[in-house]
Amino acid sequence: MTALHPQSHPRAAIILAAGQGTRMKSPLPKVLHPVGGRAMLDHAIDAAEALGCERIVVVVGSHSPEVRAHVEKRLGADSIAVQDPPLGTGHAVRAAEAVLGDFIGHVVVTYGDVPLLKAADIEPVFAPDSDNPHEGVTVIGFEARDPGAYGRLILDGNDLLAITEAKEASPEVLAVTACNSGVMAAPVGLLFDLLAEVKNDNAKGEYYLTDVVELARKRGAPTRAVFASEDSVMGVNAQSELAQAEALFQATQREHFLAAGVTMSAPDTVHFAWDTQVGAGTTIEPFVVFGPGAVVAEGARIRSFSHIEGAKVATKAEVGPYARLRPGADLGEGVKIGNFVEVKNVRMDPGAKANHLAYLGDGHVGAKANIGAGTIFCNYDGFFKHRTTVGEGAFVGSNSSLVAPVTIGAGAMIGSGSVVTKDVAPGDLALGRAAQTTKPGWAARFMETMRAKKAAKSK
Amino acid sequence: MTALHPQSHPRAAIILAAGQGTRMKSPLPKVLHPVGGRAMLDHAIDAAEALGCERIVVVVGSHSPEVRAHVEKRLGADSIAVQDPPLGTGHAVRAAEAVLGDFIGHVVVTYGDVPLLKAADIEPVFAPDSDNPHEGVTVIGFEARDPGAYGRLILDGNDLLAITEAKEASPEVLAVTACNSGVMAAPVGLLFDLLAEVKNDNAKGEYYLTDVVELARKRGAPTRAVFASEDSVMGVNAQSELAQAEALFQATQREHFLAAGVTMSAPDTVHFAWDTQVGAGTTIEPFVVFGPGAVVAEGARIRSFSHIEGAKVATKAEVGPYARLRPGADLGEGVKIGNFVEVKNVRMDPGAKANHLAYLGDGHVGAKANIGAGTIFCNYDGFFKHRTTVGEGAFVGSNSSLVAPVTIGAGAMIGSGSVVTKDVAPGDLALGRAAQTTKPGWAARFMETMRAKKAAKSK
Amino acid sequence: MTALHPQSHPRAAIILAAGQGTRMKSPLPKVLHPVGGRAMLDHAIDAAEALGCERIVVVVGSHSPEVRAHVEKRLGADSIAVQDPPLGTGHAVRAAEAVLGDFIGHVVVTYGDVPLLKAADIEPVFAPDSDNPHEGVTVIGFEARDPGAYGRLILDGNDLLAITEAKEASPEVLAVTACNSGVMAAPVGLLFDLLAEVKNDNAKGEYYLTDVVELARKRGAPTRAVFASEDSVMGVNAQSELAQAEALFQATQREHFLAAGVTMSAPDTVHFAWDTQVGAGTTIEPFVVFGPGAVVAEGARIRSFSHIEGAKVATKAEVGPYARLRPGADLGEGVKIGNFVEVKNVRMDPGAKANHLAYLGDGHVGAKANIGAGTIFCNYDGFFKHRTTVGEGAFVGSNSSLVAPVTIGAGAMIGSGSVVTKDVAPGDLALGRAAQTTKPGWAARFMETMRAKKAAKSK
Repeated sequence: MTALHPQSHPRAAIILAAGQGTRMKSPLPKVLHPVGGRAMLDHAIDAAEALGCERIVVVVGSHSPEVRAHVEKRLGADSIAVQDPPLGTGHAVRAAEAVLGDFIGHVVVTYGDVPLLKAADIEPVFAPDSDNPHEGVTVIGFEARDPGAYGRLILDGNDLLAITEAKEASPEVLAVTACNSGVMAAPVGLLFDLLAEVKNDNAKGEYYLTDVVELARKRGAPTRAVFASEDSVMGVNAQSELAQAEALFQATQREHFLAAGVTMSAPDTVHFAWDTQVGAGTTIEPFVVFGPGAVVAEGARIRSFSHIEGAKVATKAEVGPYARLRPGADLGEGVKIGNFVEVKNVRMDPGAKANHLAYLGDGHVGAKANIGAGTIFCNYDGFFKHRTTVGEGAFVGSNSSLVAPVTIGAGAMIGSGSVVTKDVAPGDLALGRAAQTTKPGWAARFMETMRAKKAAKSK
Repeated sequence: MTALHPQSHPRAAIILAAGQGTRMKSPLPKVLHPVGGRAMLDHAIDAAEALGCERIVVVVGSHSPEVRAHVEKRLGADSIAVQDPPLGTGHAVRAAEAVLGDFIGHVVVTYGDVPLLKAADIEPVFAPDSDNPHEGVTVIGFEARDPGAYGRLILDGNDLLAITEAKEASPEVLAVTACNSGVMAAPVGLLFDLLAEVKNDNAKGEYYLTDVVELARKRGAPTRAVFASEDSVMGVNAQSELAQAEALFQATQREHFLAAGVTMSAPDTVHFAWDTQVGAGTTIEPFVVFGPGAVVAEGARIRSFSHIEGAKVATKAEVGPYARLRPGADLGEGVKIGNFVEVKNVRMDPGAKANHLAYLGDGHVGAKANIGAGTIFCNYDGFFKHRTTVGEGAFVGSNSSLVAPVTIGAGAMIGSGSVVTKDVAPGDLALGRAAQTTKPGWAARFMETMRAKKAAKSK
Repeated sequence: MTALHPQSHPRAAIILAAGQGTRMKSPLPKVLHPVGGRAMLDHAIDAAEALGCERIVVVVGSHSPEVRAHVEKRLGADSIAVQDPPLGTGHAVRAAEAVLGDFIGHVVVTYGDVPLLKAADIEPVFAPDSDNPHEGVTVIGFEARDPGAYGRLILDGNDLLAITEAKEASPEVLAVTACNSGVMAAPVGLLFDLLAEVKNDNAKGEYYLTDVVELARKRGAPTRAVFASEDSVMGVNAQSELAQAEALFQATQREHFLAAGVTMSAPDTVHFAWDTQVGAGTTIEPFVVFGPGAVVAEGARIRSFSHIEGAKVATKAEVGPYARLRPGADLGEGVKIGNFVEVKNVRMDPGAKANHLAYLGDGHVGAKANIGAGTIFCNYDGFFKHRTTVGEGAFVGSNSSLVAPVTIGAGAMIGSGSVVTKDVAPGDLALGRAAQTTKPGWAARFMETMRAKKAAKSK
């Protein structure tokens, strides 16, 4: 990700991810729950990176070693601040102060459970422009459809006069629909100076980040609000909200791909991942699921009930119905993968086909090779995985088992039902099956006996 | 099912199920159509049982031997009353009088085509409390979004002054949105005394249960309404209404499981049965169908396009995509069932795997055993079903056919493509396949000949 | 298709299909994009045919050889008019004049990108009745939910006084919700006389069909509007609109089948083609896709995740879950096709079964024959397709490969895992598999070695 605006004034982000997420009722920490196949926390980090933040600090709770490990893996240990015990949002931000160290510049506070907020939504907090960022406190507000318990923004134009909590609000203030998203930006020195003054003399004994606004006004620092859409700032606290965020995410993806020239007769039944790529003129039929890492070229066809993850599909390729492409599946131009076929870690050269009931795992299939119905690449011996290579124009008969490591030469043929354990040279025919034998009348006698048995049993 | 309130005052239910359901245009009797995988009539009986009704009488028509058989199987022949010919709801209830016999207590009249009405919705008809049930006539009303042709409840507080049919209503009465659900309760003696007075001097010549209210008021018996939601009292008369009831049922289930900590990125694409159980922290991906009898533990993963019916899934098990679990599939902890795999009546011990294209029917798979791609448990000889047993840690090579009855010992291996008809001892390797033979250059010659043929044909 | 009204006054249709469709961003010409599995242009031609038009002229652009080829194939070369360059709708209609030649009668102008407009919606343009068609200009209007940029119909009763473009409209005219669909009818002579007078003195320098109305009024010819629903006249210009048209189409189909007695628990998840037929009393479970050419009888059962195209399903047949029926699949009464089974160009006689993981391509399966799990009809030799015949009551063991052309006699049996290359006589048993051999202790030794290797590797 590159920054939206290369800017001379340094930026940092503090991402709050210390909440317990108990309302999720899930052993998985809340911020690691995915939207579009990517952890919500990673969406927040993506936005911070896209803003060009040179420092990103994630504030985690001591209760979530998995979140800590996740951040450490992506950003390194020096991007982690621990809040312990949890004493409110203001307290959480202060936990990041030591980690930011001698950083000079602007800090934006975002949230690990606000997965739809993009860099472009946040960028205005640094306005009027990246060379002259705002020197006071900026809050991202939103127009709420149902303001309910949200804190209200009391505004004079863009000037933010106060944030009033709903439970302390008069009827007139409750009628205000401009609400506080919780996202806030300020110069680092101002932010921590103000936070040092925040008190916890409230019912819960917590330190609220919101209080910074009032403190800033008291000392005459400018305070203002910029606005984002309600959907973009939605926070996730329960499974139903996670599902709602996913629905919004999917709606955006579907609109994006329709506008880009992807034909979907039932877009609501196509589920994309955060990084799915699909080219113009490609058709996606109803009931298709993309996991992360899928890249589909222009003019391909993805048929119903397909599941595509970590796979590439070239132009004119046809996938499904009921095709499962797993990571490393790499389909060349015009390749056909048909029903009940699984492809994993296999390159298929242009024009290769596997149309029915097959498992292709770990290997390479040459151009125009035909893999018969029921073929299995036996890639696993119980301990290690091995590769299968099928040459250009080879024809693998139905119900064959190719026991890897094994190579079928170009233009070779494999008889139906064969178990192939040794390499087959180009142009050769390999067979591995017993001769057909017949027991005349055996079936008729057997059926008679069994019918009698069955009749006896049912008496 | 246990009663919501153990109560000293006996209760009975009369469930009307004699309608012809001609608008369904289906050979299946209307009340046997399922919602959430369970016949609507059974939902009504469930509610009556949950209310603690000591007698439940289902009024059936003479035209539906299947309904009669269904009730007889569940409740016994002495729970059936026959209404023949059909002369209205009042007439239907009277048909139950003889069957109730000397029952003393309160009777509630419900409907076999009102599948979403729960015991908790009905319970208030017995208020103020189960020890002091209401001694008059109680009707369940609902606030209609669009009152249309529903009978209107004319109320004075909770006192029910009259039920007015829409076609006889003045404009003022038509503006009333409190409507009659048809569900009614009363002491048994009062109910049948009043019904005996109901006349059929109307256009259709039918006896209406509704008339009981006016007759009660005439003799000074108390009449009142209690309220349920419009959705809960919806009746099903057409396929579109059945689909609507199912949608409401599914919405309730989805909310229930989200609230219980089940992660669903697209809950609208997950279809539950009436008795589905899913533990917290389990993930269900888009496009999953549960038939009756599915029990999924906490922390399992159900992937897209899975179909699960009559099956158990333990914690950390992973199912799908495209897995079909049929009755008797019993997956232990950490079991993996992958794509295009069908499991029926097989216990899989912890850590066992069948990842690709397999049919496992009637058997037992030991812990950590690995069933290769394309493996078939040949459980059926055309007449009887037989069992396959695979021992702990065994490795069944791809495309194997295990011809039941057969036992593969612990730690044994089966070579790919083998047909196994005899037991294999622990630690042994069994093979049942022909040696690989080669015909050098045969494929090249064959392809040349065929290409020539094809070219000739297309001339 | 037969005409709605056989009529003595000849009718013709001019279908405009010359638009570039650039907003679709697809290499497929816009009018060839399907709705309900049928090209939009074909829906327009269907409507014209159902109206009894004796001449149908499609106006195509020079940029779309595929559209031209499509029309030529369906209607013949003499039904094509080319508009080149594109100079507006009026210009496009004039391009059809020469092709219509000496046609005398009424002409209706429709659109290749208006897929939901049925003959019954258009019929009123010929009123008062087909014997006395209207002798002036008739426009189809619609009541717009959001009139926006649509041309407004200025009406006096049904008399059409003017069509005013939105950008030239006064606020009062903008408030009019009666809008112009673009569909217009007139006697052929009048239409082309008026078109000859249309000028292109506008910003785009185009000739607008709409101008005909004003010109008609000038010469005192009657002009009027008849109305269709907004949905029926919707035009498709972008992928999102195509998806919207498909959604409307599907909604209509779903309502139709529910009303006809088809049971669908989740109708929104069932996708029909334009010509799907399903009988009353058939159940369709969630997530089913019909391609063109599917005919399902009464009282059948289509289970979840099935995909049915060009196939026939008789009464009491059960299909799926996860069954794929392709063109030529013809299932007799009571046939069962189970999970992960593909059937193409195969007749299955009554009571035949293929319950699990099989590919049946090109053949015939006799009554009550049983096709075992994993069976493949090896129909393709890389060059030609061949047929497999399985006799009545035959039993094909699991994982068998039937190498076509091949015939299995009535009542014959095939041992599991056999490769059958020669015909099998009725009542015989055929086997094609190696004897089972055992290597005692081999698996135990192998596993020990491999475990050691794996341990060494991971050090």
